[in-house]
Amino acid sequence: MPTVEPHLKLKAQIYLGDEIAIGPGKIDLLEAVARTGSISAAGREMGLSYRRAWLLVDTMNRCFAEPLVATAHGGAGGGGARITPAGEEVLRRYRALQSAIEAAATDAAKGLMQALAPQPK
Amino acid sequence: MPTVEPHLKLKAQIYLGDEIAIGPGKIDLLEAVARTGSISAAGREMGLSYRRAWLLVDTMNRCFAEPLVATAHGGAGGGGARITPAGEEVLRRYRALQSAIEAAATDAAKGLMQALAPQPK
Repeated sequence: MPTVEPHLKLKAQIYLGDEIAIGPGKIDLLEAVARTGSISAAGREMGLSYRRAWLLVDTMNRCFAEPLVATAHGGAGGGGARITPAGEEVLRRYRALQSAIEAAATDAAKGLMQALAPQPK
Repeated sequence: MPTVEPHLKLKAQIYLGDEIAIGPGKIDLLEAVARTGSISAAGREMGLSYRRAWLLVDTMNRCFAEPLVATAHGGAGGGGARITPAGEEVLRRYRALQSAIEAAATDAAKGLMQALAPQPK
């Protein structure tokens, strides 16, 4: 009987009131904006419409004291986007948070993993 | 200007292949079954249909080596459900996992929380 690999998935979200200021999806988008220099290119990489990607960036910018992404308007190329120093700081801190919970979870999850069946029955 | 309370939400899920063996919703259901002695009563408490609650219990039972919930069939009352020793163990271990990631996250999330706006702009 083949076995399947169990795996642990951890998700950290920071809410500001009812809004999710930051979470795994927004962090991935922020990284993609940093890499591509463009909200639309970043959204495309993640399979998001431009509107959806823009709304996620807008939520981040509205939830933090300093904007995480700055956009340049106009020009023939339609402007572009770059991550701000505040955005770099949020990326760095979120990655540290993710590492901290992963390190803490590894031992605690071991017993649960060992109680699993080799595969779903 | 009123401020809103930021809060951190952490979610741990254990996958077995494509199935979620355990996560926050299934743990809440397992606790409710332990308390009520019934899958339908537990589902009702959580706003789930009987079918949905039964499917979640079935997934847990199929993913772990030992069933987490045992059901008694038949009788005038339509049987009942109880949590097994394996189910108690999973509850205990999942709570320990949740505590471990919360403890690890508290410090790491502090800087992110402090960078938030007083409320969404």
